[in-house]
Amino acid sequence: MKAIVTVGLKPGVLDVQGKAVAGALKELGFGAVHDARVGKQIEIQLDGDLDPETAEAQVREMCEKLLANTVIESYRVEISR
Amino acid sequence: MKAIVTVGLKPGVLDVQGKAVAGALKELGFGAVHDARVGKQIEIQLDGDLDPETAEAQVREMCEKLLANTVIESYRVEISR
Repeated sequence: MKAIVTVGLKPGVLDVQGKAVAGALKELGFGAVHDARVGKQIEIQLDGDLDPETAEAQVREMCEKLLANTVIESYRVEISR
Repeated sequence: MKAIVTVGLKPGVLDVQGKAVAGALKELGFGAVHDARVGKQIEIQLDGDLDPETAEAQVREMCEKLLANTVIESYRVEISR
């Protein structure tokens, strides 16, 4: 079983890395770029015998404890077989 | 128009960050975790008047030039209105 966790800064939090990426892209001549926001995507291989609900609950707990700084970041969890 | 770029290490490339995440999760008691791989997700706001094909081509060029180290990383591009 596989879980894909996407972690990104909450709206309103200044994304310095995103600003740097957007600035660099504009300097490279990509004038169509308005803004960019950079986040993490973590792919986790889990035991196959977990049921999806249990897996999702465990992965959310992983996010709360380790994978996301929930003060400034939000996360999304997708579970797939 | 919005582009979502997902960049990750190619299969076979040692993911040190992923190993660290998997190890830390196991230490926190998440025994169901086998492995983890960590990548980047970059959300780019583009001009609205671009057509999707042109937008995708430009974003692929952004990946080749800046967003991905194509020697060890692969990338995926999703375009949405």
